[in-house]
This record gives sequence, C-alpha cells and structure tokens, in this order.
Amino acid sequence: MAAWSELLAGVRGVLLDISGVLYDGGEGGGAAITGSVEAVARLKRSRLKVRFCTNESQKSRADLVGLLQRLGFDVSESEVTAPAPAACLILKQRGLRPHLLVHDGVRSEFDQIDTSNPNCVVIADAGEDFSYQNMNKAFQVLMELENPVLFSLGKGRYYKETSGLMLDVGPYMKALEYACGIEAEVVGKPSPEFFKSALQEMGVEAHEAIMIGDDIVGDVGGAQRYGMRALQVRTGKFSFTALLVCFERGSSAFSIWAAGRRPDCRSLAKAGEGGSPKISCSLALHREHHGLTFSF
Amino acid sequence: MAAWSELLAGVRGVLLDISGVLYDGGEGGGAAITGSVEAVARLKRSRLKVRFCTNESQKSRADLVGLLQRLGFDVSESEVTAPAPAACLILKQRGLRPHLLVHDGVRSEFDQIDTSNPNCVVIADAGEDFSYQNMNKAFQVLMELENPVLFSLGKGRYYKETSGLMLDVGPYMKALEYACGIEAEVVGKPSPEFFKSALQEMGVEAHEAIMIGDDIVGDVGGAQRYGMRALQVRTGKFSFTALLVCFERGSSAFSIWAAGRRPDCRSLAKAGEGGSPKISCSLALHREHHGLTFSF
Repeated sequence: MAAWSELLAGVRGVLLDISGVLYDGGEGGGAAITGSVEAVARLKRSRLKVRFCTNESQKSRADLVGLLQRLGFDVSESEVTAPAPAACLILKQRGLRPHLLVHDGVRSEFDQIDTSNPNCVVIADAGEDFSYQNMNKAFQVLMELENPVLFSLGKGRYYKETSGLMLDVGPYMKALEYACGIEAEVVGKPSPEFFKSALQEMGVEAHEAIMIGDDIVGDVGGAQRYGMRALQVRTGKFSFTALLVCFERGSSAFSIWAAGRRPDCRSLAKAGEGGSPKISCSLALHREHHGLTFSF
Repeated sequence: MAAWSELLAGVRGVLLDISGVLYDGGEGGGAAITGSVEAVARLKRSRLKVRFCTNESQKSRADLVGLLQRLGFDVSESEVTAPAPAACLILKQRGLRPHLLVHDGVRSEFDQIDTSNPNCVVIADAGEDFSYQNMNKAFQVLMELENPVLFSLGKGRYYKETSGLMLDVGPYMKALEYACGIEAEVVGKPSPEFFKSALQEMGVEAHEAIMIGDDIVGDVGGAQRYGMRALQVRTGKFSFTALLVCFERGSSAFSIWAAGRRPDCRSLAKAGEGGSPKISCSLALHREHHGLTFSF
C-alpha cells in the first residue's frame, strides 16, 4: 500500500467538517473534541489553505462560528461554507419562494427571502420542529404544487450529540420524497455544487484538496466522487459498521484515529479475516496515524 | 376492450378497503362516503362473499368497527383483516419484543405482547405521535440492535381526512429505513401474506377475488401482484396524477367512479391524447360505471 506521504502528495487545501470532527453538539452548546482545537491551529500555521465545510443547518453561520470561537477554535464566518446561505442563493436565482421547515436557529439566514405564497419547500435539520404537524404542512404545500420542488439542506442520516445519536434531515427528506413521489435537491454535502463552491472560495482544485469528516457517505464518499481525497476521523458518528459497509461496496475511503479515541479493533479485525485487501490497508493506516494531529 | 361482465367473470369474493372507500376520517370520527353504506348492504345481499381489508393502524379493530356501525355500515369485527392483529401473530411466532411507535388508539391490540427490553420496533400510523422525540427513540432502539428489525403496519404514503391529505406511516417507515440502512417488513397491504390471510378467512382463491380500494399502489397494485383483480374507486385519496403514473408504468389497473364524485377528466383526457390504449380503456370504463353502486 502507498505510504502516507504519497497519499497526500500535492495537497494544497484542507476542507474540515465541523460537527463530529471539531466538536460534538449537545447540552450547553457541546464540547470540543480532544485535540481538535490544536489540530486546527496547526493546520492554519502550515502552508495549507483551510476551509470549514459543514452541513450544519440548525444554526446560522454567525451562531456556529460564535460557538466554535467560545470553544477555542480559530475560525471566522468567511471561512465557513454552509448550506443555508447556498440555498438562499439558489432560491434567488430561480425566483423561488420557500415554505421553510427549519430550526428557529437558522431562520435568520432566510431573512432576505420572500416566503409568501410558497412555490417550493426547504427542509433543514429542524430537530424537535420535525413534528407531525410541521411535516404534514410541508407535505401539503408540496402536494398542492404542479411541479413540487423540495430542497434539503444536506441529507445526513444522523449525527452525534453528547447524549447520543440524533436523526438528521436526511430521513425526513426521504419521508417527503416518498410521500410526494419526488426527488429532493440536496444543498450541502455530498452535492458536487457544494464542494465546488467551497473549493472556489479556497482557490484550490479538487485534485489538490482533501476533505476531513466523520461521515463516510456525505464527507468521504461525496468528496471522492468530486475528485478530492478524503479522510474519515473516528470521532462523531464514526462507526465500524458504516465503514465496513462502504468497504464492502468498494469505497476507497481510508480512515484515521482521532486523538485520544482509540478504537475497538475487534469487529474490524474479525471482518478483515476474510482477507479483503481494502480492509487490511485500512488497518495498516489505523496503526500508524492518530487523527487530526498528523502532520503534512 | 373486454366487457364489464367478462372482467368480473368468476368473482366469488370481494375485499373492501375501508378508509377512503367506505368513509373519510376526520373531525368527530369522519363521514360515510355517499352511496357506500348502501353498496356494502347490496354486496352482502348478493351471492358474493365480502371481507374488509384495511391498513387502518390508528384504531383497534373494535374501535374501527364501532365507528363504522355508527355510520350505518353492516360490519362485524370478525369480518375485518387489519395489520395490528397480524403483527401480534408474527411477534409471538418469532419471539420478538417490540418497541411500539403507534397511536394510543391501537395500543390495546398489543396488550398481550411483551414489550420489555425490546429487540425490534413496530411503527404504525401514529399521527401526532410521530414527534421528533418518538422517531429518535425508535431510531436509537434500532441502532442499538445487532440485527435491527423494523415492522411497519402498512406503507401507505398518505390518506385523506375531511380536512385534507395526511401523512401515513409509509414516509416514516422510509425515514427509519434510511436512517438505519435497513429494510422494513411491511405487515398489511400490499404484503402478499396479508392478502393471503384475508382470502383464507373468506375461503376464496386469489383468482376468484377482487380488491376494491382507493390506493393505486397498496390496494390495486398489491392485489394484482397477488393474482387478484382490483378496482380503484375515485373517492378517498384517488388522484389522476397517481393513476397516470401507474398507467405509464404499465399497470393494468382500471378505475371506476364513486357515486356522486364525478371526476375532472381534463388531465386524464389530455394525457390520453398520446393515444395510450390503456388510458383509453380507462376512459371507456369511466363513462360506463359509477363506483360502488355497480351490480355484479
């Protein structure tokens, strides 16, 4: 297998996922993941360009950046690519007026958008606001449209809070897709347009960039499909099961340890007994590298 | 095209869907659909065997039959095939202890089922109980199981109440399937086992039976795949759009008018200008027949 330095040759820019990589959300805003504040600082001191690429859709960018700064991260609003501002741009370009099924925390991002007499629906990670009543209202709006248009800010399956795994927007997107017999337009990872805009802001080509995230599908798979390299950290919602499913499906993802969170390798080793070279490659990497603290 | 009498030759038994065919649910329990009380009475006076085959999962069979009797229908509990009792049978046979995400109205059907230390999840049309918190709890139970098993009582997309279209259990089933990366086991229409048990109770073979419902997928498609004939009424959640989608996919469903609810034929006629023989056949039927009041 290729050496670590070969795998990272030519990398000029790093896209960092936020939730599950830099911090875990939860009571009181959440907590920084051990080692991540220092890792971001180290990356910023390096020759690499750094940008934050998140599917966070419960908070406005301003609130998210405020939280990260309080947790000790060196980050500013202009360094963050997030789905709500990207959705606003699309709505304006296409003259669409959304019915919003979003968390109150992100509603301010849509302040400049006309929401009267809606001709589309935008859903985001609404959390507790994913009530039956709110879902039914979004469904009814879509069913009354001749050409129903549904935007979903990301399509993550779940994320991790300090209290446990929580349903993300993806399951609710699937619910509305099925109810209405339509396909949603995803704004956020793993959409190619979203990666494109993040790379443009950073001034780096896809083949020169690496995405670091905890989501094997949204972060790693999405970035790889867009021609980037990708690393999966073992914090956040990382799970061996999800990783193995992707290996079995032929993903070339590779995975690294996050600082201070050594994995239980039993399940991976057990699955590796079948002799899959991809899993062996993954195990080799696990032994050598320790999460966000690696050096380029 | 074949005459009506030919299409119905050899029919010995009729399976009747309930919601959207006999009555529309809503405030105060709902209202009988015009002509349906008389149509059931006429069917019962005929030489045909009649059974009610419903995906109703908000109410116990006892409550559903009580409601129908108050609306004037001649129906008893033993004539109704419903998913909750069918699910209880499966849970007992397989030694499964469910976490229940169901409406309070149907909970009594599970009184004899052990729900301690759950090793599967059962969801039904929970209505307002499809809160984020309840969905997240069901998701977390599934994610903690080594082999997550999810039962869904039906997989309907939506149903019609007097106040409008309402999300059914199907979208929430899809949400949990996506969140957990699993496939649910459907108990209810269009599951072949469910039609089988209804036909066995009636003592009629599939080729001798006809299913009458308002759902082009769950009722009509499901029955046809099981070797039955099927009629779609134009009450309940009937829509031209859904019907046309099925015609385009090659379904041989045909559709009849429900008494007092003449359709707006414009969209169908417009689509029919393309010259599809199936759509023409459908139009021909529409002109001749008037819902549940037809005679065998």
